[in-house]
Amino acid sequence: METAVQPPSRRARRGSSKAARSAQPGQNLHLRVPFITRKIPTYDLLSEEALEKIEATADRILAEIGIEFREDPEAVRLFREAGAKVTEVSAQAWNLKFEPGMIREILRTAPARFVQHARNPANNVEIGGDAMVFAPSYGSPFVMDLDNGRRYGTIADFENLVKLAQSSPWLHHSGGTICEPTDVPVNKRHLDMVYAHMRYSDRAFLGSITAPERAADSIEMCRVLFGADFVDQNCVIMGNFNTTSPLVLDGVTTAGIRTYAEAGQGSIHLPFLLGGAVSPLTMAGSIAQCLAESMSSCALAQLVRPGAPTILAGFLSSMSLRSGSPTFGTPEPALGSLVMGQLARRLNMPLRCAGNFSTSKRPDGQAMQQAMMSMMSAVQGGANYILHSAGFVDGLLSMSYEKFVMDTDMCGALHAYLGGIDVNEDTLGFEALAQNGPGEHLFGTEHTLRHYETAYWDSALNDDQPFETWEEQGSVDYAQRANKRWKDILNAYEAPPMDEATDEALKDFIARKKASVADAWY
Amino acid sequence: METAVQPPSRRARRGSSKAARSAQPGQNLHLRVPFITRKIPTYDLLSEEALEKIEATADRILAEIGIEFREDPEAVRLFREAGAKVTEVSAQAWNLKFEPGMIREILRTAPARFVQHARNPANNVEIGGDAMVFAPSYGSPFVMDLDNGRRYGTIADFENLVKLAQSSPWLHHSGGTICEPTDVPVNKRHLDMVYAHMRYSDRAFLGSITAPERAADSIEMCRVLFGADFVDQNCVIMGNFNTTSPLVLDGVTTAGIRTYAEAGQGSIHLPFLLGGAVSPLTMAGSIAQCLAESMSSCALAQLVRPGAPTILAGFLSSMSLRSGSPTFGTPEPALGSLVMGQLARRLNMPLRCAGNFSTSKRPDGQAMQQAMMSMMSAVQGGANYILHSAGFVDGLLSMSYEKFVMDTDMCGALHAYLGGIDVNEDTLGFEALAQNGPGEHLFGTEHTLRHYETAYWDSALNDDQPFETWEEQGSVDYAQRANKRWKDILNAYEAPPMDEATDEALKDFIARKKASVADAWY
Repeated sequence: METAVQPPSRRARRGSSKAARSAQPGQNLHLRVPFITRKIPTYDLLSEEALEKIEATADRILAEIGIEFREDPEAVRLFREAGAKVTEVSAQAWNLKFEPGMIREILRTAPARFVQHARNPANNVEIGGDAMVFAPSYGSPFVMDLDNGRRYGTIADFENLVKLAQSSPWLHHSGGTICEPTDVPVNKRHLDMVYAHMRYSDRAFLGSITAPERAADSIEMCRVLFGADFVDQNCVIMGNFNTTSPLVLDGVTTAGIRTYAEAGQGSIHLPFLLGGAVSPLTMAGSIAQCLAESMSSCALAQLVRPGAPTILAGFLSSMSLRSGSPTFGTPEPALGSLVMGQLARRLNMPLRCAGNFSTSKRPDGQAMQQAMMSMMSAVQGGANYILHSAGFVDGLLSMSYEKFVMDTDMCGALHAYLGGIDVNEDTLGFEALAQNGPGEHLFGTEHTLRHYETAYWDSALNDDQPFETWEEQGSVDYAQRANKRWKDILNAYEAPPMDEATDEALKDFIARKKASVADAWY
Repeated sequence: METAVQPPSRRARRGSSKAARSAQPGQNLHLRVPFITRKIPTYDLLSEEALEKIEATADRILAEIGIEFREDPEAVRLFREAGAKVTEVSAQAWNLKFEPGMIREILRTAPARFVQHARNPANNVEIGGDAMVFAPSYGSPFVMDLDNGRRYGTIADFENLVKLAQSSPWLHHSGGTICEPTDVPVNKRHLDMVYAHMRYSDRAFLGSITAPERAADSIEMCRVLFGADFVDQNCVIMGNFNTTSPLVLDGVTTAGIRTYAEAGQGSIHLPFLLGGAVSPLTMAGSIAQCLAESMSSCALAQLVRPGAPTILAGFLSSMSLRSGSPTFGTPEPALGSLVMGQLARRLNMPLRCAGNFSTSKRPDGQAMQQAMMSMMSAVQGGANYILHSAGFVDGLLSMSYEKFVMDTDMCGALHAYLGGIDVNEDTLGFEALAQNGPGEHLFGTEHTLRHYETAYWDSALNDDQPFETWEEQGSVDYAQRANKRWKDILNAYEAPPMDEATDEALKDFIARKKASVADAWY
């Protein structure tokens, strides 16, 4: 795959540290990286022929049904100039049809791989190709923990969750609306959220997209943090934009996309498809629609600024056919995510897909079983940016503190998984086996001692001890251990250093913005 | 892949029933099959070149280090006649070395696919090729449930677990030592175990292997159940044989293998490799050793009776490098299982590999997260016979009643997963999407209604309801739901009918056997 960015060598990225395995569980220093470079092949589910049928259907959707754009004449103008067939549906709605191949042609300027810069350059992430980035879950109005149950999220929760993310070596990105800070006015909370990402994390993050001016504020704060010139030349922030499925792009979304793209910043183009509700009930049809919607949304960014970082995306969901409730972590969307990976590679574009999804209302077995089925599909499908990598429960309505640390621990295990199996003379270990011969254990062999520190993933949260030891230590289950762990992490948290003048400038920007307009709660 | 058995068409196997989706959750009638036919590709991790290196190392192990056979001169005689180089290690131990390619040549008589018959022919399973069979976990001395905690297993537990397995449409096989019935004398418990499988299940099962005479008793009971002629001509029982790693086959094991093979019955040849303890710490080496051990064990069955059903197997395990405890459900063995799948296909032999492994001491998030990582590798690697598909916790020391039903529900989801994604004009759903156009939901479309009963997996155990509904219903977590569920299943259980004369003959056989020898507890 063509890559606009040359990835640094594995050795360089992992650093030269080969520090001893700590007595503390879960260190795995040899696996720490600013982002993952996938060393295993992708799991390619469908044949070339089947993929072509899906692509042809996406092209038919774009050519024959079209996408409805609302309340953003500028977006319509850009597409009309590019050759779209525009039909007015109402005063503020236009149906746009695209000849087969037209959208793909526009997308040829989209980079296959790009860098999103973090304020700490050691945490820059690459997005695309064989690079993979894990980010926390996004958008829950509620939070929950074992002590206080479920309640509306606050800015304090938001900051806590940013700190938990920053503290995990197994996430690479601070995410965006990690929970809704419902105690802050709707028209001002983007300022506090962006500040929290900037101040309590030194990783890359997502900005606001809920209104064009909030998108602009997010980018303006980046200019304060990174400098205006740097922001103009580099991707330092991204917005996550949802289509209004089926086949609609509303004006707030397209104006936001234009704002990010004009500034040369990244955009994620996500159809959230609940099969049977806003897309065909059958997965093949949902995938085709997902491709059509995400491609046309991505194309807008390319029309605004060719070469702008642009991420194809899919959030495929199923539903309970008895109740109509959405379901997550089910097998059909997991398969669909694998296919989205194939389609993104054929477009030579980065992909956002899947995550640690669940409908469970507790950090229990259901939560982790559903999460694993979903997350494995992201990892095996070669998704490049995996939002919702930590904390997602309750059908995305709640962010669970306990599941957050469960998920980050599993994200660590996936670092080992994505490292694959090295096959060489040393790892084949013939000499180690020959040394003592049949019937003799290998505990003390030189081979065992030499690989001791790096052979296996070491979980910080799983209990692998004998039953008796576990019982003597109080029979603590996984959720209780996770409860203790997130508290320990928050207690030990220290904010990454920030230049005082920059911090003051950010605070000043926020204060002025907040003072300039009355609070709004809608 | 060549197959000795022509699989029936999907339509025929699934039956013609298209009964309405019940108001009860978890029915999924359209997915019910006596065994799964994998419709998705396998996940092939390693390159041809890497696989060849592993195979060459396995050949070197067999040719240069050799396998030690103990206390079974007959096994040694068979291999010597086939060309092995035999060196006496002690009075009852021989080192056997095999020229590269010799073992593979012997294995050419092993069937790529075979049928194991069940007493209910509708439950016959096929093993090999794209067929997949899920069986319960095997060999735990303890059982546990939320009410009574962990205790030694009894014959009552054994019967309960056989009944739970029989009641699940998502298992296909009754397994073997589903737990150790520790209240029955060691030298007699095989009789009660085999009887329980025969009486409380009408599926295929595994027999005893703990002593050659117990293996013979297991097969003799099959002659009572199926008729001696039928048993001579068909596989009706299998034994699961562990190598004594590294690189040893003890006499009880090889005598058992000979007993099953002579009777034309199936045998599974399993190295249980704890990397760093009984195999190289690095996964490539563990896999090479696994291949060498399992191939040589399988070869014995082929020397005894060419064409005897023989299953290559691998149980790859990691360990905590801080405590030395075995760990399960970790990423490295999951990758190893995928490679074992590739190697088995290159040998054109059926594979047993992985399962729902966990070290958790509770049916909690750890249990299901580890289980999923492991089980997905079996399913994606194309394993054909997946023992340990349900109940495994506590590093295989305990069988959990709750996790048993959690795992079987997930096994159901895997039926949907393994069904893949159909891509055709109908499933692409273009007309459904075109019908109402942009912005209109698809709930009432003819396409949605037509696919309503089969589109998505419907879990019997997950709670996908809104939080408020869940809370009103008592905020019941996954483990509590599972606890209720296994009790409900046992309450509703009805034994499959059995001819009274056959039942009497089995009981008579058991009574005579038990009376013929004093109880032994070791």
